[in-house]
Amino acid sequence: MPKVAIIMGSKNDMSIMSKAKDVFDEFGIDCEVFVASAHRTPEKVHDIAQDISANYDLVISAAGMAAHLGGVLASLTIKPVIAVPISSSPLKGMDSLLSTVQMPPGIPVATVAIDGAKNAAILAMQIMALYHPNIKEKVESIRTAFKNA
Amino acid sequence: MPKVAIIMGSKNDMSIMSKAKDVFDEFGIDCEVFVASAHRTPEKVHDIAQDISANYDLVISAAGMAAHLGGVLASLTIKPVIAVPISSSPLKGMDSLLSTVQMPPGIPVATVAIDGAKNAAILAMQIMALYHPNIKEKVESIRTAFKNA
Amino acid sequence: MPKVAIIMGSKNDMSIMSKAKDVFDEFGIDCEVFVASAHRTPEKVHDIAQDISANYDLVISAAGMAAHLGGVLASLTIKPVIAVPISSSPLKGMDSLLSTVQMPPGIPVATVAIDGAKNAAILAMQIMALYHPNIKEKVESIRTAFKNA
Amino acid sequence: MPKVAIIMGSKNDMSIMSKAKDVFDEFGIDCEVFVASAHRTPEKVHDIAQDISANYDLVISAAGMAAHLGGVLASLTIKPVIAVPISSSPLKGMDSLLSTVQMPPGIPVATVAIDGAKNAAILAMQIMALYHPNIKEKVESIRTAFKNA
Amino acid sequence: MPKVAIIMGSKNDMSIMSKAKDVFDEFGIDCEVFVASAHRTPEKVHDIAQDISANYDLVISAAGMAAHLGGVLASLTIKPVIAVPISSSPLKGMDSLLSTVQMPPGIPVATVAIDGAKNAAILAMQIMALYHPNIKEKVESIRTAFKNA
Amino acid sequence: MPKVAIIMGSKNDMSIMSKAKDVFDEFGIDCEVFVASAHRTPEKVHDIAQDISANYDLVISAAGMAAHLGGVLASLTIKPVIAVPISSSPLKGMDSLLSTVQMPPGIPVATVAIDGAKNAAILAMQIMALYHPNIKEKVESIRTAFKNA
Amino acid sequence: MPKVAIIMGSKNDMSIMSKAKDVFDEFGIDCEVFVASAHRTPEKVHDIAQDISANYDLVISAAGMAAHLGGVLASLTIKPVIAVPISSSPLKGMDSLLSTVQMPPGIPVATVAIDGAKNAAILAMQIMALYHPNIKEKVESIRTAFKNA
Amino acid sequence: MPKVAIIMGSKNDMSIMSKAKDVFDEFGIDCEVFVASAHRTPEKVHDIAQDISANYDLVISAAGMAAHLGGVLASLTIKPVIAVPISSSPLKGMDSLLSTVQMPPGIPVATVAIDGAKNAAILAMQIMALYHPNIKEKVESIRTAFKNA
Repeated sequence: MPKVAIIMGSKNDMSIMSKAKDVFDEFGIDCEVFVASAHRTPEKVHDIAQDISANYDLVISAAGMAAHLGGVLASLTIKPVIAVPISSSPLKGMDSLLSTVQMPPGIPVATVAIDGAKNAAILAMQIMALYHPNIKEKVESIRTAFKNA
Repeated sequence: MPKVAIIMGSKNDMSIMSKAKDVFDEFGIDCEVFVASAHRTPEKVHDIAQDISANYDLVISAAGMAAHLGGVLASLTIKPVIAVPISSSPLKGMDSLLSTVQMPPGIPVATVAIDGAKNAAILAMQIMALYHPNIKEKVESIRTAFKNA
Repeated sequence: MPKVAIIMGSKNDMSIMSKAKDVFDEFGIDCEVFVASAHRTPEKVHDIAQDISANYDLVISAAGMAAHLGGVLASLTIKPVIAVPISSSPLKGMDSLLSTVQMPPGIPVATVAIDGAKNAAILAMQIMALYHPNIKEKVESIRTAFKNA
Repeated sequence: MPKVAIIMGSKNDMSIMSKAKDVFDEFGIDCEVFVASAHRTPEKVHDIAQDISANYDLVISAAGMAAHLGGVLASLTIKPVIAVPISSSPLKGMDSLLSTVQMPPGIPVATVAIDGAKNAAILAMQIMALYHPNIKEKVESIRTAFKNA
Repeated sequence: MPKVAIIMGSKNDMSIMSKAKDVFDEFGIDCEVFVASAHRTPEKVHDIAQDISANYDLVISAAGMAAHLGGVLASLTIKPVIAVPISSSPLKGMDSLLSTVQMPPGIPVATVAIDGAKNAAILAMQIMALYHPNIKEKVESIRTAFKNA
Repeated sequence: MPKVAIIMGSKNDMSIMSKAKDVFDEFGIDCEVFVASAHRTPEKVHDIAQDISANYDLVISAAGMAAHLGGVLASLTIKPVIAVPISSSPLKGMDSLLSTVQMPPGIPVATVAIDGAKNAAILAMQIMALYHPNIKEKVESIRTAFKNA
Repeated sequence: MPKVAIIMGSKNDMSIMSKAKDVFDEFGIDCEVFVASAHRTPEKVHDIAQDISANYDLVISAAGMAAHLGGVLASLTIKPVIAVPISSSPLKGMDSLLSTVQMPPGIPVATVAIDGAKNAAILAMQIMALYHPNIKEKVESIRTAFKNA
Repeated sequence: MPKVAIIMGSKNDMSIMSKAKDVFDEFGIDCEVFVASAHRTPEKVHDIAQDISANYDLVISAAGMAAHLGGVLASLTIKPVIAVPISSSPLKGMDSLLSTVQMPPGIPVATVAIDGAKNAAILAMQIMALYHPNIKEKVESIRTAFKNA
């Protein structure tokens, strides 16, 4: 069974990231939520990264300001890291976007829009759809729903 | 056998995107390169998107300025779209970055750094590693090489 | 009789775009409003583009974030596309502005100010005034009203 | 016979704007080039604006830095004004783009990409195609050429 | 007797510009307020510019978005033009700042901070203090008040 | 006789600021050039500010990066301070522009364009023209030259 | 006993800077708060700088807009200056950040995040921990608290 | 004896960071240079952080793009971390600046200017001057040299 982790730097990010969890819940995809800061609790992030390597298909990270969480996770696991820059600072997410997407060569982070939690979940499903036919059907149903909306 | 498409909006983008192709060539991953513009040749993009849906694991797109190629592809296939914003305009890629990463809810594009062709290829390999054990070994060898560099 | 289309990526954009419709209503210009997303409903956009080619003088598009709607329409019709970037994201329209105005060579989009719905309508009227003398009179009356305000 | 004006704030802008003239020359569209500064020679701009009102279908303006030329022309004529922000300052055209596109309500300027001279000319042709069937054919031939390129 | 003009593009700007008028009122400096748009009422601006040339020491202009008012005035009079960019658009004044301060060679505009109406008035007083000893005393009293605050 | 000071934070700024000196030399206006850093030599700046208060009509300052020179001078003299942000850093003058123009209430700096040395000199002449009829004639001759160019 | 100064350009900055004072109060570190403007009260800043040189270990400065306070202090004392850019202007702190961090060679300012008052205090403690073992224990207790949170 | 570490994410950064080493060499301060990437070699960074905690007074980090190195080091040691954003990407250091300075509450990074290697070294000396009288003399000699330059 596929399993996805959501990790956010602060529990305040849950107001945004619940939209990702809602997608997984709606489509019956197993999803665990962690709160850990790349800066305040680096060891916890390290342990979660090892857990992800062993037990999860991929991880969605979310952080604001100098958002290092996605990059730090990506340095610790080869599972795909999807990252959501959060608009929690006065710069409205330009800081978290650049901190997340501008990763140097070697360690990519798949970045979605500022506060784009829903798209992070759909991207995760599109990736898992490559090898889970029933998830592929779910992604197709999302597209069909758009057509009929 | 896994198969990856690289599609760029202009053949001028090849100077950047060859770094993605080099990664695939180095690791023996089957990779096809297309040149098609979301704006000048939308039908060609449409046809390539159908080809990708049928015959490829995923696609890496690259475009500069108002870079719509990633988003247009993502609207036409449910295969994961990884996009590389190109710094070809006077704004040095801020335009292509925002045009690529700020996708509205429903249709995600996995965005990497401006001109980040190499990371796009590595991200593609990390995704395919989820269901291709031999690609997983190759990704691990990239990480090992970093350690020993 | 001249006929104008207004198309927006999300029905939320109507709060801004109603100012364009108000201008057309005030001056008795036939105007149809569509809601269609370049990303979620590309086929609907394709069909509307064909409808525009056949039945409308020009189209005003509106979208926020990575605003591809104007560019996608422009790739599908040779009727002039006027686009309004919408300030609906945390970046306050800098993303939609650059996604709209920075079109690559070959397929132009006539871009107006962020949330500039009223000016989009007036620009449409200035274009149609080139070949509709009674619209020319209406545009002149707008200018006269400014003088006397 | 349709007739187009190109006006630029400095003769240095000709290196960019020649791409617009080239399009008009290629398609046999009558085009006059003016050099006049909204700031240094406002009266000359005023006279050109009256000439445009009387004798031209539309005008393409080009200026760098605090690029007021498009807005000033638009305030003096109701003919459509297409404007090209020029990247001649250290800010690489972000200044001229915002000075051009962010026009306040009432007086629109149809803005294209920074240094987007070619698209300005094509947009002009798309507008004139609305009432000049032979220009419509030329625009269609541009599109056909893209397909066959 | 010295005399200063304040001119704003929209009466909505009065909420900001009243801080400039308050300074002049407090120090007994004769000040006239005009509302005129460089774009919607260019002739009115032209007439005010001639009035300024004949009857005023200098002018403070204020405008938002593509703020051309300062530059247009400066092109029409050699009296010093002090300009206040207004933060009335979604871009929070970055557009009006660049439209105002980035004037091309030949026609300067003395730009103060976004919404910096009070400083515009104090700068006007510092300029007039060069040839009005009693205004010099007033400026010195402002500085003394800062010290004793 | 009017007398103007030019002060720059680094002698490297002379390549830009010589354009201001050239204007003063061309029009026979007495001009002294100082090199002093608000940060490295604050006491020298303090002494120059006192010299300016006593012996000069106004001062033009120039600095790059976190350009505090204009603001520091303005805090030490009530003579008008015209400032030129210099584009010497990787951010191409956006840093020096904001450091210069965004002065808080009470102490204004009259800011011109990034690297706008020539306009700083012309603005200085426009100010001195208020009380020096022969400088007024010189400013008018600049305008006449533009017309006849 | 170590002693820290907090200096802010306006008493309005206290709503942000109280978070720095709270840290010092919580950990029993002697802290004096000053309000002085680099621009409106340069002599007061000069006197405080001398007081800091004589009686304090280091200083935390806070200012918005063209935030010169940190740089001015740093030019007047060799004690480390930690600066907090304040988001009080329409540009939301991008102006104060660049005015603070982009110091030219010779006079550094240790800059923390926009409105990052808490981090300024912790950085001050990390510096004093280098030579005050009991402050080192306090910093370690902050880290331990993060782990156990 | 005080001891300083310089750590950079890529050996390419040495062209900038040599200016920091030059300062330490000139003033006889013991300085070790490391090359380690927060992303490609996180374990090496972890080991260096422990070495810094045990054997160094403080660390200067340098990285470009999504510059996480300073933040990652700061999460692993309580020694002060001074960081230099490097302008190696198309965005010219705006990405590395925001990735470095916008650290979330709890873990500060003392940020200097983009490419500001020299100031990083001087800041390190100002910090060590607090408890090393002979370094204090060296810092004072730097200031004296500025005065006499």
